[in-house]
Amino acid sequence: MSLRPLQDRILVERVQETEKTKGGIIIPDTAKEKPAEGKVVASGNGRVGEDGKLIPMDLKVGDTILFSKYGGTEVKIDGTDYLIMRQDDVLGVIE
Amino acid sequence: MSLRPLQDRILVERVQETEKTKGGIIIPDTAKEKPAEGKVVASGNGRVGEDGKLIPMDLKVGDTILFSKYGGTEVKIDGTDYLIMRQDDVLGVIE
Amino acid sequence: MSLRPLQDRILVERVQETEKTKGGIIIPDTAKEKPAEGKVVASGNGRVGEDGKLIPMDLKVGDTILFSKYGGTEVKIDGTDYLIMRQDDVLGVIE
Amino acid sequence: MSLRPLQDRILVERVQETEKTKGGIIIPDTAKEKPAEGKVVASGNGRVGEDGKLIPMDLKVGDTILFSKYGGTEVKIDGTDYLIMRQDDVLGVIE
Amino acid sequence: MSLRPLQDRILVERVQETEKTKGGIIIPDTAKEKPAEGKVVASGNGRVGEDGKLIPMDLKVGDTILFSKYGGTEVKIDGTDYLIMRQDDVLGVIE
Amino acid sequence: MSLRPLQDRILVERVQETEKTKGGIIIPDTAKEKPAEGKVVASGNGRVGEDGKLIPMDLKVGDTILFSKYGGTEVKIDGTDYLIMRQDDVLGVIE
Amino acid sequence: MSLRPLQDRILVERVQETEKTKGGIIIPDTAKEKPAEGKVVASGNGRVGEDGKLIPMDLKVGDTILFSKYGGTEVKIDGTDYLIMRQDDVLGVIE
Repeated sequence: MSLRPLQDRILVERVQETEKTKGGIIIPDTAKEKPAEGKVVASGNGRVGEDGKLIPMDLKVGDTILFSKYGGTEVKIDGTDYLIMRQDDVLGVIE
Repeated sequence: MSLRPLQDRILVERVQETEKTKGGIIIPDTAKEKPAEGKVVASGNGRVGEDGKLIPMDLKVGDTILFSKYGGTEVKIDGTDYLIMRQDDVLGVIE
Repeated sequence: MSLRPLQDRILVERVQETEKTKGGIIIPDTAKEKPAEGKVVASGNGRVGEDGKLIPMDLKVGDTILFSKYGGTEVKIDGTDYLIMRQDDVLGVIE
Repeated sequence: MSLRPLQDRILVERVQETEKTKGGIIIPDTAKEKPAEGKVVASGNGRVGEDGKLIPMDLKVGDTILFSKYGGTEVKIDGTDYLIMRQDDVLGVIE
Repeated sequence: MSLRPLQDRILVERVQETEKTKGGIIIPDTAKEKPAEGKVVASGNGRVGEDGKLIPMDLKVGDTILFSKYGGTEVKIDGTDYLIMRQDDVLGVIE
Repeated sequence: MSLRPLQDRILVERVQETEKTKGGIIIPDTAKEKPAEGKVVASGNGRVGEDGKLIPMDLKVGDTILFSKYGGTEVKIDGTDYLIMRQDDVLGVIE
Repeated sequence: MSLRPLQDRILVERVQETEKTKGGIIIPDTAKEKPAEGKVVASGNGRVGEDGKLIPMDLKVGDTILFSKYGGTEVKIDGTDYLIMRQDDVLGVIE
């Protein structure tokens, strides 16, 4: 069972806190808007502009991303927690 | 008797709570904005952009969808409860 | 005497409460935003987009519609109550 | 002495209350936003869209209109009261 | 010394109160948003639309205008009071 | 050392109060939004519109401008005070 | 380990306070919105406009920039503090 996000939405699996401290990116406690790390597990095809043309995604399945912590809607599929968010809530790709 | 939604609106039959626990998607109680499951039973033809061209729908009748719980307008047709919402209130398609 | 609505506006005759219970659509009392039933008795030619092209109407005179209860402006013509609203306040067509 | 409204504005002479009761359109006291009747006495050439093209008016001088009561700016020319409003404040044309 | 307004702005010399009562336009005290009379003494070339094309002005130097009283920025040049405002604050041209 | 403003921003050196009284433009104390005088010392290349085309600047380096007093961000470069503002905060060019 | 910003975002390394006083740009304490200095260490490819075309960046990696102090999201990568911001939060390039 899976979820196909619509338009410019992605399905994101949040990276566990324990993993985050192993990785190189640490979010300072003093940050006003704390970003969080996650992995793109499903993606929509992109947003449709005012002239009807598809604007393709900058992200692909498998990307590790940094996203705005207050973005996204929580959902649990087959026992795993995910977030559905718009691409615009994503700050960057961790490489 | 039936309802044909206008533009980018869809008519959605909410999936019963009992069915939802059988399915694999569970919405955690701690979620800020809880999404809900439903089935598309009727669909408009799409939104018309600023240049007058039709932007077709990403959804079709029969799709099982996850939608924002606070979106949509409740209506009862021939004894069954439905929701009328815009496609933009739909987070994804469950496959 | 009659009223020709401008642009994407329609003139709607509200369906009486007694008729509504005969029909198949019932609006639950718990609904946050209750829609109402009506009949399109006059229609504008459509909205003009930013590039000056006419965007024609999805509705035609005679359509029975479901509309947002808080949309529209009340007016009485030759003793009959009507509502003037924009097409965007219409949720769907009852067929 | 006269006033030429700019762009999509019109100059409207309000129809007197005594005339309104003679006509067929009565605005119920319970209406949330009461419309009013008037006559178009001067009109601009239309709005210019984002691409620089003129979007012509749907109204012409002499039209009897129903307009949103809270729209428009009051002005007195040669002893007569008028309202200057945008075409978008006009609900329809009385025929 | 003079001021060349930018884009769709105009430089306006307000018509004195004593002149206004001589003219035919009187603004009633009960008006919600009182317009005022003035003369266009300088004008920009027009606004540039989203596609980079110039949208020319509907007003020219010498026009006597009626403008929204709360629009515009006051400035004094060589001892004379002026207002700088956007063309959109102008209701119409007095002819 | 210098600053190159981005897009439709300009770098402005405020004209001293003592110079302003020598010049012909005096801002009345009763003005709601007092404009100020300045000189353009650096300019961006212009704003990029929605279709990707550059919209060139109406201002050039050396122009003496009148700008909205509450616009702009203060900055000190090599001991001199400047303001960085968008061209849209500029009311006109003093000639 | 690195971060690739999405669309019109950049990754900025803030210039230390001690370096800032060595440089020529000093932000007065009385400034309403204090800008800050930084270095672009990574950049997205640009924003995609409504017609699907890429609008390329005005900034490149290595640029020393002045940016709005309240813009951007703080993040720490491999022990170094960075800010992720949109190009529109950048006031200018220091040359």
